[in-house]
Amino acid sequence: MNAVDLIIKKRNGETLSTEEINAFVAGVTDGSWPDYQTAAMLMALFLRGLDDQEISDLTLAMARSGEQIDLTDIPGIKVDKHSTGGVADTTTLILVPLVASCGVPVIKLSGRGLGFTGGTIDKLSSIPGFQVELPAARALELAQSTQAVILAQSGNLTPADKKLYALRDVTGTVDSIPLIAASIMSKKIAAGTDAIVLDVKCGSGSFMPELQDARQLAEVMVRIGRLAGKRVAALITAMNQPLGRHVGNSLEVIEAIEVLKNRSAGDLVDVTLGLGAYMLLLAGRCSEPNEARALLKKQLSSGAGLKKLSQIIAGQGGNPAVIDDYGLFAQPACRLELRATRSGWLTQMDTAAIGYAFVTAGGGRLAKDDPIDSTAGFILPHRLGDPIEKGALIAEIQAADPAKAAKAKKMLQQAIQIGPQKPLPQPVILDAID
Amino acid sequence: MNAVDLIIKKRNGETLSTEEINAFVAGVTDGSWPDYQTAAMLMALFLRGLDDQEISDLTLAMARSGEQIDLTDIPGIKVDKHSTGGVADTTTLILVPLVASCGVPVIKLSGRGLGFTGGTIDKLSSIPGFQVELPAARALELAQSTQAVILAQSGNLTPADKKLYALRDVTGTVDSIPLIAASIMSKKIAAGTDAIVLDVKCGSGSFMPELQDARQLAEVMVRIGRLAGKRVAALITAMNQPLGRHVGNSLEVIEAIEVLKNRSAGDLVDVTLGLGAYMLLLAGRCSEPNEARALLKKQLSSGAGLKKLSQIIAGQGGNPAVIDDYGLFAQPACRLELRATRSGWLTQMDTAAIGYAFVTAGGGRLAKDDPIDSTAGFILPHRLGDPIEKGALIAEIQAADPAKAAKAKKMLQQAIQIGPQKPLPQPVILDAID
Repeated sequence: MNAVDLIIKKRNGETLSTEEINAFVAGVTDGSWPDYQTAAMLMALFLRGLDDQEISDLTLAMARSGEQIDLTDIPGIKVDKHSTGGVADTTTLILVPLVASCGVPVIKLSGRGLGFTGGTIDKLSSIPGFQVELPAARALELAQSTQAVILAQSGNLTPADKKLYALRDVTGTVDSIPLIAASIMSKKIAAGTDAIVLDVKCGSGSFMPELQDARQLAEVMVRIGRLAGKRVAALITAMNQPLGRHVGNSLEVIEAIEVLKNRSAGDLVDVTLGLGAYMLLLAGRCSEPNEARALLKKQLSSGAGLKKLSQIIAGQGGNPAVIDDYGLFAQPACRLELRATRSGWLTQMDTAAIGYAFVTAGGGRLAKDDPIDSTAGFILPHRLGDPIEKGALIAEIQAADPAKAAKAKKMLQQAIQIGPQKPLPQPVILDAID
Repeated sequence: MNAVDLIIKKRNGETLSTEEINAFVAGVTDGSWPDYQTAAMLMALFLRGLDDQEISDLTLAMARSGEQIDLTDIPGIKVDKHSTGGVADTTTLILVPLVASCGVPVIKLSGRGLGFTGGTIDKLSSIPGFQVELPAARALELAQSTQAVILAQSGNLTPADKKLYALRDVTGTVDSIPLIAASIMSKKIAAGTDAIVLDVKCGSGSFMPELQDARQLAEVMVRIGRLAGKRVAALITAMNQPLGRHVGNSLEVIEAIEVLKNRSAGDLVDVTLGLGAYMLLLAGRCSEPNEARALLKKQLSSGAGLKKLSQIIAGQGGNPAVIDDYGLFAQPACRLELRATRSGWLTQMDTAAIGYAFVTAGGGRLAKDDPIDSTAGFILPHRLGDPIEKGALIAEIQAADPAKAAKAKKMLQQAIQIGPQKPLPQPVILDAID
């Protein structure tokens, strides 16, 4: 099948057949489509769009483009959870042990952080000794013994998606809902779980600032996941402020532990319970939402989720004593405080800007191989709508490098605004697609 | 100016500024825009379109991307003629001497043939000794002494257009009227003449099978040429059959000589006179069309055009004796005849197919560096609508290689059809934009 003919067909607004999409993805994977032809096709796909069958075909072709994980040896309905990426979103670190503690196997492949969004693998790497890469046999053993394992996504999964994503990034074709949906779902399908709960973020700290776009993305992903034979549900959750109160690597692990110790409440816990309930429902562990939420709360109050986290850390070579002694994490060389210069209400948390301030502090990365500072991060004690007194602590900034901490503080000063009027309260769970 | 930002702007349907288009063309020329970004931009330009100002900016930026020929030392209004490419179109070989014989300097940069369209430079190269590349000083000398020179387009003219054209060819972005218009006009503007007469071909043997598309292309080119300060006019002419009766390299030189000997009539002469009249009008040599046509006819009947061709050939190192002895051209090793298998009327000449049969015979090329056979070609004695007797000669095929001649004969058999009904006569000049 000739590349130029396929490009022209899509350019003309026609629908590509399954065989044609397979030929495109095969050409991208084996390099027989040069980048310039792939780029032209991506722009044609961006501007002409894809129908559900085309998105599904693209997703499956990318899912099959490399290694595919086979979890059939692990008994039960395996469930995965995916977030489109946000700031202070440590739900994965809470949900994996919490849901596993309910008897549902959770095999989680996670990524590292990039740009303004954090990554679960970076957070876990802040636990002394924790191994994010394990031999397959050991991972399978853990999945069967503790029913929970969290690993860095391997280089062999969905190589076509990797190539297409890298090219989209430099050709102005990132923000296409069909292409985003296919990219996410191809990785989830290749990861081999039976059920997937999607957390589609919406707001200033996400790729989908508009609710209607977030809803469309969620709907497309649910549809194509089901076409691929998976159980899928999605929540649309607010990312107009950092989800939790800690932004950081070790800081977010600490916040996850605090939730599992049942000491927290608020948006982070609400989103965690919402996603966790869907995980239990899709896995068939519970049959209705209230039952699922009650079970999750019981596991929090009994400490069963915390105990499971301890098992996961120990199983993957980490030191579980960090759970009771946060001093075992590497400590920041520098701590700065940002205080309110006026009284009023907290009216704005520019979440992407806070994410970039975190990168500036040294905790995140702009390029794939940038080193990161596990101690860098912020504690943000207030939520949008909180009353603030002049002089109150707005942010505590931590980092290994004082100059970076100072730069980050300046960025936070811009990102966090105090105004004269209390803003309207906004819900954190905006919609559900199930 | 960031490449991705410019791609996204055009992708979103916004208008690019002059500075932005300059940055794009500069990036293509110096290689700082990688091919995949250029390809994405080309697809965005293809699908979103360009307004007149953008086409004009693109044209001028490409015209300035390399060497620009300065003809100001040559007195008078210098005029150029450009055809969008057809089969058996030898008008350039007639018009350069004919118009120059009227006292109008004609400095013609021509291309080689590619695909199903022939090239003036290939035709001239069949004249023993003829030099299509000359040192600049010698070319200028000839332009001043004979007022006519025909040269191969240099490698340094419009490098941005060359890169963009090569990329369009492999990314499904060729058939865009704004991109075609900018490509043609950039070369014409860089070539430095004051006036340009465009011959936009329309029909089965052209890039514009539909009259409305051909008209749109002609109108856009005339507008952007004028925006660039040039005198421009365009004819839209039929290419639903080969323009002349000879398809070939030496064969088309011979047909041009026959016209200059005033021994021909028909479509080729009609188009030649139509284009030539515009050349004289734009150059200010005549003030109205009938006067211009009369002058051209006088130069044909007096032999003044033929004498000028002889001067051109001699000036560029060729042997002008070919004019009186066609036996001085290289002779084909093989001649085949195609005869009518039924009686009727000539109803179809699939002109692109005839062009490809010519490539198959060895006379044209599919890739830029293919060698060509100057003796290969066809004599097609009949025109659409001619009555044909069974057994009549339909085509004479000539080539150096008998196997290639046989293949070409089979292709001509498919391309030329005889039907039971006389088709409606069609004009050769379809429209004029002036």
